[in-house]
Amino acid sequence: MVNFNVLLFNGFETLDAFGPAEVIGRLPDKYSLKYCSLLGGMVESSQGVQVNTLPFAEIEPDGVLLIPGGMGTRALVSDEHFICQLKILSQQAQYVLSVCTGSALLAKTDLLSGKGATSNKRAFKWVSSINTQVNWVKKARWVVDGKYYTSSGVSAGMDMALGFISDRFGVETANNIACDIEYRWNSDKDKDPFAVL
Amino acid sequence: MVNFNVLLFNGFETLDAFGPAEVIGRLPDKYSLKYCSLLGGMVESSQGVQVNTLPFAEIEPDGVLLIPGGMGTRALVSDEHFICQLKILSQQAQYVLSVCTGSALLAKTDLLSGKGATSNKRAFKWVSSINTQVNWVKKARWVVDGKYYTSSGVSAGMDMALGFISDRFGVETANNIACDIEYRWNSDKDKDPFAVL
Repeated sequence: MVNFNVLLFNGFETLDAFGPAEVIGRLPDKYSLKYCSLLGGMVESSQGVQVNTLPFAEIEPDGVLLIPGGMGTRALVSDEHFICQLKILSQQAQYVLSVCTGSALLAKTDLLSGKGATSNKRAFKWVSSINTQVNWVKKARWVVDGKYYTSSGVSAGMDMALGFISDRFGVETANNIACDIEYRWNSDKDKDPFAVL
Repeated sequence: MVNFNVLLFNGFETLDAFGPAEVIGRLPDKYSLKYCSLLGGMVESSQGVQVNTLPFAEIEPDGVLLIPGGMGTRALVSDEHFICQLKILSQQAQYVLSVCTGSALLAKTDLLSGKGATSNKRAFKWVSSINTQVNWVKKARWVVDGKYYTSSGVSAGMDMALGFISDRFGVETANNIACDIEYRWNSDKDKDPFAVL
């Protein structure tokens, strides 16, 4: 059994969270897939999706933590209590995956310091300013460094989630999921057509 | 102002609904984007996302209706009250977009009879059996017939949503949204790499 925990907050980007959740939710093996926020209850995405969540205190942190990005990250990087709790969750997780500006939150915990990471190309300047000790990679669909996976903007999160599944469960499992959801997987993490735009 | 209404039900497929919602939510023009279900309240996707919804009675039906697919459609095609209400909503809408097995629900209302439509390739036999008066297209990323847009499986919904935006708001707007979310848009509705699998 693998515990997948998707961390949500007000102003999260809808596809950052639910693209990877769709991919993970297609795993043939037994898994738990839960949606959590700092205090639990209803949180709302930037596209107006109101989602019911468990509080951090009620999830099993020993597993995979997924952190989406979105406009909500702009305020959260300055929320010391949130960042402290995120750091504890991230330390307890076996793997931490962030999408888009979710890497700004993770960078703020200092857990990415000295490690390679990437983020949304449109927000790169802001994200990389959050922690200059991170080895920010400007051209990558996603970056893996130890237990940390960080992806480029929004839909890159789906590619990274498939890449994570490929690394942990085999490339055939990842290809089957991509085929099931009729998705053209960008399976090369170093190929980033949006880096030059 | 355009009203976009995303219809949800228990067992909807997460990405079917939220892929297009992400795309629509990026429109630069003024729009309303709401999530509804027959009776309103909380509905849960196949991937365990619990979403708060408005009842059908509280939305403005004059706009664009988006119908996702998912395992929940299997029971709903036999729910006469639901299908009757869906037919009324679809008749009131200026445009109706369905993703994956969402076309089974729409086909059941008889509104697609005599029209071209497509669906998920894995579920094609079941979907096409729901209404044999529909001109089911086996090879298409999405199909447009009058006010009805129907897409292939899951991630094809994002391509169709971008196609709809291109048709209504211009191809530049669609390309800008695809670029913003770092998504490789499959912009040719007749190119369907998954039809042969």
